[in-house]
Amino acid sequence: MKALKLFGPRDLRMVEEAMPEPASGEALLRVRAVTVCHSDIHYYRYGRIGDTVSDTPLVLGHEFAGEVVEAPAGADDLRPGDLVAVEPAVSCGHCRYCREGNPNLCQNLLFAGIPPMDGGLREYVTYRPEFLFPLPEGMTAEQGALLEPLGVALHAWDLAKPRVGESVAIVGCGPIGLLLVQLARIAGAVPFVAVEPLAYRRDAAAELGAEALDADDDLDARVEALTDGHGVDVAIEAAGTMPAQEEAARIVKRGGRVVLVGIPPEDQMAMTHHVVRRKGLTIKVARRMKLTYPRAITLAQRGMIHLDPLVTHRLPLEEGDRAFRIVEAYDDGVVKAVVTP
Amino acid sequence: MKALKLFGPRDLRMVEEAMPEPASGEALLRVRAVTVCHSDIHYYRYGRIGDTVSDTPLVLGHEFAGEVVEAPAGADDLRPGDLVAVEPAVSCGHCRYCREGNPNLCQNLLFAGIPPMDGGLREYVTYRPEFLFPLPEGMTAEQGALLEPLGVALHAWDLAKPRVGESVAIVGCGPIGLLLVQLARIAGAVPFVAVEPLAYRRDAAAELGAEALDADDDLDARVEALTDGHGVDVAIEAAGTMPAQEEAARIVKRGGRVVLVGIPPEDQMAMTHHVVRRKGLTIKVARRMKLTYPRAITLAQRGMIHLDPLVTHRLPLEEGDRAFRIVEAYDDGVVKAVVTP
Amino acid sequence: MKALKLFGPRDLRMVEEAMPEPASGEALLRVRAVTVCHSDIHYYRYGRIGDTVSDTPLVLGHEFAGEVVEAPAGADDLRPGDLVAVEPAVSCGHCRYCREGNPNLCQNLLFAGIPPMDGGLREYVTYRPEFLFPLPEGMTAEQGALLEPLGVALHAWDLAKPRVGESVAIVGCGPIGLLLVQLARIAGAVPFVAVEPLAYRRDAAAELGAEALDADDDLDARVEALTDGHGVDVAIEAAGTMPAQEEAARIVKRGGRVVLVGIPPEDQMAMTHHVVRRKGLTIKVARRMKLTYPRAITLAQRGMIHLDPLVTHRLPLEEGDRAFRIVEAYDDGVVKAVVTP
Amino acid sequence: MKALKLFGPRDLRMVEEAMPEPASGEALLRVRAVTVCHSDIHYYRYGRIGDTVSDTPLVLGHEFAGEVVEAPAGADDLRPGDLVAVEPAVSCGHCRYCREGNPNLCQNLLFAGIPPMDGGLREYVTYRPEFLFPLPEGMTAEQGALLEPLGVALHAWDLAKPRVGESVAIVGCGPIGLLLVQLARIAGAVPFVAVEPLAYRRDAAAELGAEALDADDDLDARVEALTDGHGVDVAIEAAGTMPAQEEAARIVKRGGRVVLVGIPPEDQMAMTHHVVRRKGLTIKVARRMKLTYPRAITLAQRGMIHLDPLVTHRLPLEEGDRAFRIVEAYDDGVVKAVVTP
Repeated sequence: MKALKLFGPRDLRMVEEAMPEPASGEALLRVRAVTVCHSDIHYYRYGRIGDTVSDTPLVLGHEFAGEVVEAPAGADDLRPGDLVAVEPAVSCGHCRYCREGNPNLCQNLLFAGIPPMDGGLREYVTYRPEFLFPLPEGMTAEQGALLEPLGVALHAWDLAKPRVGESVAIVGCGPIGLLLVQLARIAGAVPFVAVEPLAYRRDAAAELGAEALDADDDLDARVEALTDGHGVDVAIEAAGTMPAQEEAARIVKRGGRVVLVGIPPEDQMAMTHHVVRRKGLTIKVARRMKLTYPRAITLAQRGMIHLDPLVTHRLPLEEGDRAFRIVEAYDDGVVKAVVTP
Repeated sequence: MKALKLFGPRDLRMVEEAMPEPASGEALLRVRAVTVCHSDIHYYRYGRIGDTVSDTPLVLGHEFAGEVVEAPAGADDLRPGDLVAVEPAVSCGHCRYCREGNPNLCQNLLFAGIPPMDGGLREYVTYRPEFLFPLPEGMTAEQGALLEPLGVALHAWDLAKPRVGESVAIVGCGPIGLLLVQLARIAGAVPFVAVEPLAYRRDAAAELGAEALDADDDLDARVEALTDGHGVDVAIEAAGTMPAQEEAARIVKRGGRVVLVGIPPEDQMAMTHHVVRRKGLTIKVARRMKLTYPRAITLAQRGMIHLDPLVTHRLPLEEGDRAFRIVEAYDDGVVKAVVTP
Repeated sequence: MKALKLFGPRDLRMVEEAMPEPASGEALLRVRAVTVCHSDIHYYRYGRIGDTVSDTPLVLGHEFAGEVVEAPAGADDLRPGDLVAVEPAVSCGHCRYCREGNPNLCQNLLFAGIPPMDGGLREYVTYRPEFLFPLPEGMTAEQGALLEPLGVALHAWDLAKPRVGESVAIVGCGPIGLLLVQLARIAGAVPFVAVEPLAYRRDAAAELGAEALDADDDLDARVEALTDGHGVDVAIEAAGTMPAQEEAARIVKRGGRVVLVGIPPEDQMAMTHHVVRRKGLTIKVARRMKLTYPRAITLAQRGMIHLDPLVTHRLPLEEGDRAFRIVEAYDDGVVKAVVTP
Repeated sequence: MKALKLFGPRDLRMVEEAMPEPASGEALLRVRAVTVCHSDIHYYRYGRIGDTVSDTPLVLGHEFAGEVVEAPAGADDLRPGDLVAVEPAVSCGHCRYCREGNPNLCQNLLFAGIPPMDGGLREYVTYRPEFLFPLPEGMTAEQGALLEPLGVALHAWDLAKPRVGESVAIVGCGPIGLLLVQLARIAGAVPFVAVEPLAYRRDAAAELGAEALDADDDLDARVEALTDGHGVDVAIEAAGTMPAQEEAARIVKRGGRVVLVGIPPEDQMAMTHHVVRRKGLTIKVARRMKLTYPRAITLAQRGMIHLDPLVTHRLPLEEGDRAFRIVEAYDDGVVKAVVTP
């Protein structure tokens, strides 16, 4: 079968590999759609994330969906031909963190597309059935792949615990940010504010009902005017920049909650201490996601969250490298590229 | 001025009284709309609620809005002519419960329409400005009065802490129940189920998007089918009956949350112990409301929650007694009666 | 090997069985101590708990510890000769409830000593290593067995979320109640009250520092006097009786938290509705325990919780039936009986 | 009467002032003890905290207790001659923050010793009775003054929500840190670790039962060894330095909670982003305190928390300036200085 492998920084090559053999209890899938995430780009560009380095070639891709080829005995909800979304994080189920309801912090975690586990940019994968979620009638493989970023957004939203009728700001309108804006819209946040420097993304947020603002454009005063002088109840940083962290802290109310989901290039927190202290803030840092696929599927299937508009580019596996370069550049209009093996 | 006073069970009389004089720091209001609540009916029928008895004639009515006639010095957000919603619960602000964020449990609470404090069924009232909420342009006095039941519904909803994409059941579709159904719709609950024996109320819930069910109609199986076999994440009992409590516990999932907001005629909890124990449930009993008026106003003003359809009958103060009898009987079609002094 | 099997109500027989063979990945243990719990007694007496019935003979005993005979490959913390505590609840690790941090509500749960899984009243058992907790130097098998009721008490305590300096009442001073009293003592609860009708148990609670009261003895006034008129912040019902539930609700403060851990013989909740409603209570019903063994071991090892005084009777496996009758009768002085295979 | 007034940086002068006249509803107190806090020192040194500047002379001192001289009508728990602790934060009771249970974030807050409200370093003060807490028999004025830092420590502890048997690290052992160590001891934290560079403070923590460590001394490895490789469940930063923030994040476990109570001289958060992100931390920033005096009094009165050992220096009002210089220098042995008008 074909697999797209990263041999080093910016060195993606299409290789031929043996078909994977499902171990006892595993399913065999044919990969149908892989969407490219900014953390894939990070690997692509640097060959590492922080101190996680791959020393052997690696198949990237952790946002993907496939078709069941073979289902193991006992996995009664999987039938050949079914489309399934794949949860990339394979948690052990029994360490202290798993048992405490934090499988995202599992001590024995394997993650598809992070060394030493190959990801989805290949024709076939084997997988444990507990981490496969059958897609209901009418959902596409592309939507299945996009359940992963939706799950990340849902987890960040859950951490913020917004109540109906509370005001929310989303700082940064990339794919995760735009999904958060959609969540704000369906969860009864009011008003919900989107802060974003790029006009085409700001427009996308505005179309979803957000008060879309540019940080340079008198942000504090505009948020105050929208919130009766208080600031927003909740601010979620999804930009992955230092200024975005600081803005989130600045526009949230006293006693407010800030969630950080972006990954900034500089490795330190960027908030002003007297701001977070005087307001007595709670800051939660999102790490991957907890169990969110079942809710994500329901929201997508019912048309409450729209995943299709996120996809702006579609390419075959052979042009995977171009997909990476498109997402890396993110010229006007780019949100998500999907690769189809 | 005129006031409608309760002299004993079913003995409401229109009397003439002296205009109330605002004490220092108080506002004077002309009452513009009062809606009748089932707890008013309780007083009307029995002259008491539990062991709270009035031994002097009492003006009922705790859901009301008025027009500012005189504003005290320092209350800069109140101007004569403004419409304001009135929070009936006047909490002290300094007892242990108030300082811990539970003004609904204040040790020194006064409540309009509960002895010894007269309520809104009269032409004028005096009030402390901290408990008056100016209505934005375009909101009516009737809507202002209905912010009280909306606040009760919001408080119950808050206690349940539903997350976006979780399933919710509302058991009982009277005024509070229908407001809860509206909250479910705008807060991203999915599916949301309404359980109600009366067809016209079930229809109202279904029009709001609920899966509207009759408890007699194979409730458990239908909820299971809607929730992938799990039961709902959250059940809110708003019927005020013993069977409703038991149903709520029965259709909620393991580890689910049940909120009780109804007041049943019998004075004991009606849940089956092995059900609540095996599921490891959390049960919260709602008592009045916390600070919910600001959010309630935003939701109503933006048209996210529709208050007008709740009002099915309108009468002048002179026919207040009839309003009570209509709500008490609740024949086909009755939801809320509004009285206009 | 020998096993003590329940063939029907009050029909316990010692039988010879084949040694169990560890499946792949399982450990083999020699059972060293089993303590008898009231839910064992329930099975012993009725042959069932609720609608959980055994139709084949069953080995009871879910509070037990053993010595490792054989450890599977990969279980590096288990060495032959080590003493281990056994968590009786074997959760699947991957269902919705497990992943959400509620292994106590696992959909695929097996529980040692509840059909269809045999318990600890036999010479040898095989077990999955994730559910074995090595005992540190100096801890005995008896203490290891008692980690199970300590875990149950810890879970109930966790649900109550008592803060340091808050007042707590424990209603019922059987084994779980006395462990809760110990937790109250070391967790900074002040005052902590124990309510218990039996004098010898009340004395045990008083020795641990509790204000030990008899419910018949002007309970409300005494609790008020101890709590500045407010009632306790937290009440935990561990008596398993209907009056105890009602007392817990009665002596807790407005906005207080009530945890139910006892299993009453009658199958309905026993609280007065207007009490729970006017106080706006939160009621949590404890179901088994979450991951509590690591903390339970630390507390026992450091001598913060004393397990030895709970054991009032010790018998060999051959006299297992007598152990059951002693615990069932609970004459003066009985707390826990331990059976040693 | 005499008052010690700050006229500018390091310019404290004893002045004669008119006796304050209690307004309607206020009590008159004779100040009996004032303890000096590091935020007093901040004012003393710079004449400001952040952008809060006093442009008129100010009486500092927010940790104080007094004797009732005159009690207003209706304040039945205050009698002349009684000792009372004074809560320095006078919250309004009715703004959004107060009603939501966050009086520490009150929009209309006055704070004794912060402009424009004079503090306790004078002979007499007038005060609203809701903010006076009578001291029980046997408690001294000095202890009453120290309830303020104890309240700050309790609030930080509450934010961290430690469960009995969880491990806790206190980073920084000044007065607040040593009170947190005492709280850890009585709340069943195990192990509890104290991190502190000064030997005499480390010794004080060790005497209270803490594992007292120097940050330079292989901190990470020692914490790992104490916590089975996981890191502590909770870390509370009470040093007010940038490295302390970073250490707290470093030694806490995945999914752990960090509370920041210190005020660092540099105005930015000092945590490493990839550390807080990979661990998925929750960070809470403490601001003053919520209602903690009643619990603080109970803990001190019962001898669970020992306040007396904190006082290392005692001076009369006339030597107030020297008290400030002692605390500012904090030479060997200095913890708290008390000033007695």
